[in-house]
Parts: sequence; structure tokens; C-alpha cells
Amino acid sequence: MEIKIVREILEENDELADEIRLHLKEGGMRMINVMSAPGSGKTLLLEKIIPMLKKRGLRVGIIEGDIATANDAQRLAPLEAPVVLITTETFGGGCHLSAAMIRSALAQLSSHELDLVLVENVGNLVCPAEFDIGADASLVLVSVVEGEDKPLKYPMMFRVADMVCVTKSDIAEAVCADVAKLKANVLQINPAVRLVETSGKSGQGMEEVASWVAGFKIEKA
Amino acid sequence: MEIKIVREILEENDELADEIRLHLKEGGMRMINVMSAPGSGKTLLLEKIIPMLKKRGLRVGIIEGDIATANDAQRLAPLEAPVVLITTETFGGGCHLSAAMIRSALAQLSSHELDLVLVENVGNLVCPAEFDIGADASLVLVSVVEGEDKPLKYPMMFRVADMVCVTKSDIAEAVCADVAKLKANVLQINPAVRLVETSGKSGQGMEEVASWVAGFKIEKA
Repeated sequence: MEIKIVREILEENDELADEIRLHLKEGGMRMINVMSAPGSGKTLLLEKIIPMLKKRGLRVGIIEGDIATANDAQRLAPLEAPVVLITTETFGGGCHLSAAMIRSALAQLSSHELDLVLVENVGNLVCPAEFDIGADASLVLVSVVEGEDKPLKYPMMFRVADMVCVTKSDIAEAVCADVAKLKANVLQINPAVRLVETSGKSGQGMEEVASWVAGFKIEKA
Repeated sequence: MEIKIVREILEENDELADEIRLHLKEGGMRMINVMSAPGSGKTLLLEKIIPMLKKRGLRVGIIEGDIATANDAQRLAPLEAPVVLITTETFGGGCHLSAAMIRSALAQLSSHELDLVLVENVGNLVCPAEFDIGADASLVLVSVVEGEDKPLKYPMMFRVADMVCVTKSDIAEAVCADVAKLKANVLQINPAVRLVETSGKSGQGMEEVASWVAGFKIEKA
């Protein structure tokens, strides 16, 4: 029973997500869904790549998903890109963004001329992978501190990813992380994924991420 | 509509959880729900405290929840405590354990005489907090690497906690973590919670956690 209901909710969500994707395409916009566990470095990655994207002449908007607080939206304010905050607590404590939430956030962004919308999803390595929000690509982060086996234990998230960033690479040695094994496990789940090691601290990999975000081909639309 | 359906599922789950709690109490058993984001150190904590609990004469069983893989169950096998593995992928990729899953796992453990069941929930800082599984207490982990603001951003998980372990304290300096602020944020959400700094590497705090697990009073039953 529960599974049947969940399936209906997912189907309804997926239809709306397809509408959003079509709508964005018609408007010449692209959207990227940024996902990870809590504390893997999504906000810091956005802080680093948005100035790089602006330098490339892209007009960037942000949809910031959190269960509670405006902390991340406030952190992103100095980037001078329009930000819409969705706190899912007001939707009953939702553990992921849904296509319906994104549609309402996009409506709030519609007064801005944009080329690209970056969506920071709720910190959760499970549910956001199951809910299509109408994005053209998925960028998934996993930090070196989380353990090498996480791609195997949370396979769906790594299966839906178009790019995976292995974050916090600067502390890999300090925490005795086996980065090679972590990367091999990502590729075991998703052999075609684009894989980058990044560090918010040193800036490692950030130009590569920005180039990918700026230039990836839309294959899903 | 979605919220109404979710509420019905939650109510049904909560009734079953109350039945489980009563059933455990009648059998003289207690159960603890161990929860955190992925990679905060739940399995390592169990590896450290279970030998301490056995030294205190407690007969311990484990219910191990994962979306996929038997990795953690295999890690726990050398502890010589009975383990039942629930892979939620077979239930449609569930992002949390439910009371129904726990009931079936407890049935599988019923051939063992036990004093205590430790449940390692799915790595997720959101959904497991919403689903009562019939445990008598909740032990929540947050690592120093995840960011000081996590208790504010995922308040429900810290609200339901009876004990919070701030894990990986040995690398706090290396990752420039503000542990005092993290702890203050935990207490802001839940002033009555028992708070312990732990390190799986150095063993810091593990005896305190084991003592609490062995001796906490059942107040919820």
C-alpha cells in the first residue's frame, strides 16, 4: 500500500519535472541539481564556482533548499546572484526538494534574465535522488571523510549523477581516507560519470567543475 | 494530499512502534535507535561499545539498516553478537527503518536471549527522525567535519535525541572545526540532551557512551 502511494506521488512529480525541463529549455535556461549528504560542501562549492561562471558571462540564479534556517541563503547573498530559499519544514519537514517546490521557486526567479539555475538540494544522500526536479544534470558531492564505501551503500544517488565531486581532498591524508578506493567505488556504480577531486580550501578542481557546469550538453531534455 | 497520506503512514507506524516498545518491555529488553548522516561513525561506535557492554554482562543484539550492501553487518560480525541485516532497497529504497521492518527483524532475533538491541538506522539526518521504531532511546551522532550549523539545519533529529555524540573529535583541529559552537547548537535545539565528544580512533568518550547505553532509564515506555 505504502509503496503504491509513494509510486503515485513519484509519477506525479516526474510529470511536473518534465514540464519544468521543457519550460526551461524554451526559455534558453539550464538547471543543475546539486546533491550530497549534510556537510559535504555544497554551499562552499557554489561560493567557489559562481564567480567563475559569472566571469564566463553566465547569468546565474540559485534555488537554496533547506529543512530549516536561512543560513546557506545568507552565505550566498554576497555572490550577487538572485537566490530563492525553500525551507521544506513549511512543507511538513520534507527530506528533499520536489518538482512542485522548484516550479514555485522558478516563478519567483522569473523577473531575472538567467542562463543557469543552480539548485542546492536538502543535505541527504537518499531521497533527493528519487525526486526529479526538472534539472538537466545532477552534480553529486561526497567528501573524503564520509568513508570509501558510501557509493556502494547509497547507489541510487551515484547512479543519477552526471558529475561527482570528491570534496575536502585537502584533508584526505589527515583523516586517512582512501581516495582511490572511494573513486573506484563511484565508478563501479556509474562508470560513465565525470569524476573530479575538489577542495574548497585550496580551490583544487573548482575550475574544472565550473567549466563542466558552464558547458555540459543537455542530453536528458 | 501528499501530506495527508504521509500522516496516515506515520500514524500506522507509530501504533506499531508502541506495540513493539510494550513487547520489548514485557520481555525485559531495551532497544536503542542509533542515527546520523552517512559516514558519521555509527558502525565504528558500535564496534567500540559492544565489547564494553558485553563486559558489563549485557547480552546484545544488533539490527543493521542499510539501503544496500552487507558491509556494516560484516564489519560487526567479529563482535559475536547476533546481527540481523535489513536492506531497505528491497522495500523500494527506503530512506529510514520503519516499525514494520523492526518487528520482522526482532522476530529473527527471537531465538536469542537478549537484554539490549542496538539498531543502526540508515545514514540520513532527516527521515529516520520521523519514524518511531519502538526504541526506548535515540542516540544521534554528528561528526566535527559536518559543519557547526547542522543541528540548526536538521532540528528534528537533534530534538528526538536522548544522547548526542560529537564524533571524530581527534580530527577537529585538522579540519578547523569549531566544536564548542557545534555543541552549543546541539544544546540550543535540545537543552536536556546528554552530550559527549567521542573519537573512534583514540577511544575518547566511548566508556561514557557505553555506560549510558547500559544504564539509561526508560522514560518513554
